[in-house]
Amino acid sequence: MESFLKSLKKNRHKISLLEPSVKNDILNQMADELRKNSKEILEENKKDLIEAEKNNLSSSLLDRLLLDKHRVNAMANAIEEIASLQEPVGRILDGWVVPSGLRIEKVSIPIGVIAIIYESRPNVTSDTAALCFKSGNICVLKGGKEAFFSNNIIAKTLQKVLEKNNLPKELISLIPDNTRDGVAKLIKMDKYIDLVIPRGGEGLIRYISQNATVPVIKHDKGLCHTYIDKDANIENAIKIAINAKCQRTGVCNAMETLLVHIAVAPKVLKLLKTLYDEHGTELRGCCETVKAIDVKLANEDDFHTEYLDNILSIKIVKNVDEAIEHINNYGSGHSESIITENYTTGEYFLDSIDAACVYINASTRYTDGAEFGFGAEVGISTNKLHSRGPMGINDLTTYKFKIYGKGHARA
Amino acid sequence: MESFLKSLKKNRHKISLLEPSVKNDILNQMADELRKNSKEILEENKKDLIEAEKNNLSSSLLDRLLLDKHRVNAMANAIEEIASLQEPVGRILDGWVVPSGLRIEKVSIPIGVIAIIYESRPNVTSDTAALCFKSGNICVLKGGKEAFFSNNIIAKTLQKVLEKNNLPKELISLIPDNTRDGVAKLIKMDKYIDLVIPRGGEGLIRYISQNATVPVIKHDKGLCHTYIDKDANIENAIKIAINAKCQRTGVCNAMETLLVHIAVAPKVLKLLKTLYDEHGTELRGCCETVKAIDVKLANEDDFHTEYLDNILSIKIVKNVDEAIEHINNYGSGHSESIITENYTTGEYFLDSIDAACVYINASTRYTDGAEFGFGAEVGISTNKLHSRGPMGINDLTTYKFKIYGKGHARA
Repeated sequence: MESFLKSLKKNRHKISLLEPSVKNDILNQMADELRKNSKEILEENKKDLIEAEKNNLSSSLLDRLLLDKHRVNAMANAIEEIASLQEPVGRILDGWVVPSGLRIEKVSIPIGVIAIIYESRPNVTSDTAALCFKSGNICVLKGGKEAFFSNNIIAKTLQKVLEKNNLPKELISLIPDNTRDGVAKLIKMDKYIDLVIPRGGEGLIRYISQNATVPVIKHDKGLCHTYIDKDANIENAIKIAINAKCQRTGVCNAMETLLVHIAVAPKVLKLLKTLYDEHGTELRGCCETVKAIDVKLANEDDFHTEYLDNILSIKIVKNVDEAIEHINNYGSGHSESIITENYTTGEYFLDSIDAACVYINASTRYTDGAEFGFGAEVGISTNKLHSRGPMGINDLTTYKFKIYGKGHARA
Repeated sequence: MESFLKSLKKNRHKISLLEPSVKNDILNQMADELRKNSKEILEENKKDLIEAEKNNLSSSLLDRLLLDKHRVNAMANAIEEIASLQEPVGRILDGWVVPSGLRIEKVSIPIGVIAIIYESRPNVTSDTAALCFKSGNICVLKGGKEAFFSNNIIAKTLQKVLEKNNLPKELISLIPDNTRDGVAKLIKMDKYIDLVIPRGGEGLIRYISQNATVPVIKHDKGLCHTYIDKDANIENAIKIAINAKCQRTGVCNAMETLLVHIAVAPKVLKLLKTLYDEHGTELRGCCETVKAIDVKLANEDDFHTEYLDNILSIKIVKNVDEAIEHINNYGSGHSESIITENYTTGEYFLDSIDAACVYINASTRYTDGAEFGFGAEVGISTNKLHSRGPMGINDLTTYKFKIYGKGHARA
């Protein structure tokens, strides 16, 4: 593992100095190559599916694993979209002249070597490889074992294009040892890896955060709240509360807990109950909620739970301060929303909540790279540092200072 | 420790919502209070000095520890300077409207709770506390044991001002358990601490990087190079090579290795030898250097060593590529400089070197918050993520997205 990573680091300048047009041309060749290779890709994917059926994987996991012609084509399209993004490297982020006359430029550059650890969906392999390549980074990919054959053939297809362009195929690498032991070693290799991005279940992310010496950008859980204020436009409140919970339930930006101001709770909850019932949503309410509508009593654990399912906790609060306190206490710092027409209450909420995305009069479901206009999404960071919330390709860069002197020596 | 940190987190909004003018007024009060209290501060400092003498601390460490009336006044001045900096919180870093009509603002906010671990100089206590307070962060300070009494009285003086202004004194906290064990616990408290900044010797920083689960911004070593190209202006080259090594030797931005293009080496090295001899600089050269001037032979270890002393390694290289390869291999990614009049060579060097600060025709000694115009300096980060190179007060902030809707539900 160490010698492999050491050799990667040597290749860094081979990718970081590539001109944008060269990178984009190679990315478009990769898209073509995926389409051309789709028969072989589907054959390899079939092997994973057979194995998965033997291992009794759930139908939803099987669906995530499955590739067909359309999906391979979608992977190719995604790479072409990444090629068309604005060049992330070399952006002048800031610049000034200091009293001594030195001219300082703060310029975006690739991070270096990025390890990405993810699960089932094989398209993550091509998406991530393309995002890293476009941003001038070497990637080391560790996909799920259940997608072993699919990830292998996808990586090989992309590597073939690298070699055709006289670039080392290792710029897009799969982890040489795809086992737990391999991951355990990888995340300690801070000498050779600049960043690890884990995408997956809570257990995986906790393990990596607790054990890595390489810096980690987590894509952690989303325990998101919506607070309906006493001054809410009720129509908006209902629309958003239904959307945030029911539009898609298994995602990190879906609402898990609804908070309602006591002054509007009876009216709002009755209206919502009818609609949630239509959506088959299971409701669990606090003591006060139970008095207002016919729902199960929620316990303390419920308010700490990211259901990722069609279940909702409900709590009635006295005022916006109680809502803020609840959110800052139980939330995961992902996405939080207030529904209100009151300017002061709204601004107070936006300022007081400690989360990556804070909304007023909108559904938390908008926390998403595409919705934010980032084009392709690396993920949704729950880190506080470097990158927070939806991560676009620019978040795969860091910066250096270029300093231009005229024979400057410090006095 | 855990209950203490838990209570800190509860106080977060008490500092993050303070208006800039209120914060600045409090900072100015702190400066006044330090001046008023200077007699008591010097008495407590005396206790540290007596203890230090008992423990046979070196004279340079004693000098770092020593406070007098002027130094206390300088501490107060530094706080007033921090008060006068531009407000770091609430800067709108970016903003746009997405196709759905949502308006997105990316806004700077405090990081939260920051632990800072540092050594001897007591002024770091007041500087750091003021920087964190101004940027809306709670700080947990862990100073050196040798400055125990000094740090205590400084922190108490600042806390008195907090309490006078009806703020919890814990916004500026000293670590409750100032032992190795206390630090070991602290750096695992990722639930309550958002960032740890270690400033000190290599051992301390390595220990923290390897063991922390809290994100770390290192202030690590600087193994800085200067490369004199064949197309250098020789007068500039000499001036800068002397400045980078001799202007101050014990600092992280001083040059440790000089690289010289073979075409100009004989001439340049002879000129430099005379001047370095005048400065009492010990020279250690590669085999080629030893042929050109009368110096000791350097070994492999020398090129890996941050001397922090009046010693210089010298290597003759065939071309700019060999210089780049040497730097990217032996450098610590801190500050690197090329001396050349050749446009293409200069740009190639700036782009190819992997370091926080890359210079052309200037001394690496300029890597410094004050020289960069940042006002007060948090330190010089050797991290690649979040903050790199000289860290100003803005680097003590992160960001959130504020998203303004009009009843937006996702389709």
